Amino acid sequence: METVNLKMLARVLNLSISTVSKALRDSYDISVETKERVLAVAKELNYQPNLYASSLRKHKSKTIAVVIPEIANPYFGLVINGIESIAQEKGYHVTIYLSHEDYQKELQFTRHLLSGRVDGALISVASSTIDYAHFHELIEKDLPLVFFDRICEECKSFMVTTDDQESSYTATKHLIARGCKKIAHLAISGNLSIGKKRLAGYRQAIEEAGLANEQDLILECSNDTDADRIKIRDLFIHHKPDGIFAAVERYAITSYEICRELNLRIPEDVRVIGFSNLESASLLKPSLSTITQPAYEIGKQAALILFSTIEKKGYGSKHEHVVIPSKLIPRASTEKFTDTIS
Amino acid sequence: METVNLKMLARVLNLSISTVSKALRDSYDISVETKERVLAVAKELNYQPNLYASSLRKHKSKTIAVVIPEIANPYFGLVINGIESIAQEKGYHVTIYLSHEDYQKELQFTRHLLSGRVDGALISVASSTIDYAHFHELIEKDLPLVFFDRICEECKSFMVTTDDQESSYTATKHLIARGCKKIAHLAISGNLSIGKKRLAGYRQAIEEAGLANEQDLILECSNDTDADRIKIRDLFIHHKPDGIFAAVERYAITSYEICRELNLRIPEDVRVIGFSNLESASLLKPSLSTITQPAYEIGKQAALILFSTIEKKGYGSKHEHVVIPSKLIPRASTEKFTDTIS
Repeated sequence: METVNLKMLARVLNLSISTVSKALRDSYDISVETKERVLAVAKELNYQPNLYASSLRKHKSKTIAVVIPEIANPYFGLVINGIESIAQEKGYHVTIYLSHEDYQKELQFTRHLLSGRVDGALISVASSTIDYAHFHELIEKDLPLVFFDRICEECKSFMVTTDDQESSYTATKHLIARGCKKIAHLAISGNLSIGKKRLAGYRQAIEEAGLANEQDLILECSNDTDADRIKIRDLFIHHKPDGIFAAVERYAITSYEICRELNLRIPEDVRVIGFSNLESASLLKPSLSTITQPAYEIGKQAALILFSTIEKKGYGSKHEHVVIPSKLIPRASTEKFTDTIS
Repeated sequence: METVNLKMLARVLNLSISTVSKALRDSYDISVETKERVLAVAKELNYQPNLYASSLRKHKSKTIAVVIPEIANPYFGLVINGIESIAQEKGYHVTIYLSHEDYQKELQFTRHLLSGRVDGALISVASSTIDYAHFHELIEKDLPLVFFDRICEECKSFMVTTDDQESSYTATKHLIARGCKKIAHLAISGNLSIGKKRLAGYRQAIEEAGLANEQDLILECSNDTDADRIKIRDLFIHHKPDGIFAAVERYAITSYEICRELNLRIPEDVRVIGFSNLESASLLKPSLSTITQPAYEIGKQAALILFSTIEKKGYGSKHEHVVIPSKLIPRASTEKFTDTIS
């Protein structure tokens, strides 16, 4: 008996081979009517697709995934815009997964990524992640992968970050230069690469200046704004810092709110600087001094590296860490002289 | 010749039927080694899967899609957090697609949605969309669908919004009550449902108050901050409004920047109110009066409706419009008396 193949099916149906193939794969390009007709004839002629000829995993989904820990931070919005600018050029879809800082969700996503839905992924690690086996698995399975901002330091992968330690050092030195002697660091989780680096930069500046390196002035905050508010308020009340270096924008905003509550003047009583991409930083009362990350550029670079990996089909043994510096923008919240504050 | 089926394969391989089935479907649950072994034996025995028995479209992906037009607006971040709170309970993944206000991207996404990757979708329409055929197609194909915020008014679908017209009417009346006589409306695209409703609410209040309904005071802004800045600046210079009602948060922020540039005092020279979910609205100089949307609640409601549709497997002929009211929060930017401004 002659084997029924796509070509025969197409001839019988009076359709192109490509249409028949698409119909059998349930493509959205083909109408429901055509699909039904193709399936009926395929069944009648006992057509058996050669499923093994094409590995399901090798199909190009023309989709990349971005895994981010939170969406409320404008930083990630800018990174995604940078990623999209490149994906658009390349004709790729971007789907965004939100881990909400939850390791379990991140784990589920990475499993999802291996199901062949995406051709590559850009990942920023959740703060609750302390085990990296799921990332190692992605790398072993040769899924093109780039970490950005919050990286997996032990992974042999591509990474794009800012100069977290240097920027933190600069921000802390800036507070010292403006006269602060008791600088608190509102830190992000020590699980995170950026948590460690930003703390190290702060410590380096404090030690160099010969200021007391008080453990009480280092407060690890979380992703829970209400819980953070209570902890930061306690810090203000019990330790009376004269400078705040916030590792994340949200902690700076909360500091502003608490200063208002406690009738502390910024910058007269407390100077505040924070990592931030807040568009309205200059419109706050007082305007907020920031360490501004090149978020859009980080997204663009990370995407460029990802696509070059996708196009080369796999890693090989290469991995690389690209660092794009941040910029200190001094504003009224760290002014030295109270009479020049705007 | 006996037909080789899954059961036989499993017996030969000494594996469970479910493992063999998963291996053939390239599931991530199965190791690469096992998959290779299964494929080799399947080929050897000339196993032919019964592809037609299961419609590819009927598989449950346990994933829902959220299509949003932009990511820089905190409104959408809050909506997504609301959606995720429900999806998590239901054990579903959420993937986010960003249309960047681009109809072509939205079109591509909706095609993507029909490829069986998701069990349902929550959509907020792009501002450049003027043809709704792609949404009608999703509905015809019975993909569970809920529109939120920017809805497809002509679609027979579920929708969740705030009370856009009433809130805009209230905001404009608030400016009138504070003494404004020449109120400009910084409008969002008239293509959008919310663009029309917000403009209508503004017009209604202006007409009721007997103020001149000047077309020059209605400025349709875009998603391009730089272009908007130029247009809004021109409006300030040539038409000297004493009140600004911004349909979107970003337009209020731009108005603040322009007032600073032009040395206009808020609220003495111009009062400003805008739709906004900006966390730091109360920390701006001056603090910004807002129409605050119940964004988290909108996300939650939209997701609840979506899951009830998914669980019932299809629409039937039902559709419904759920409205959750916004709240006016007056702050210093619309204060009446300059001596009480904080």
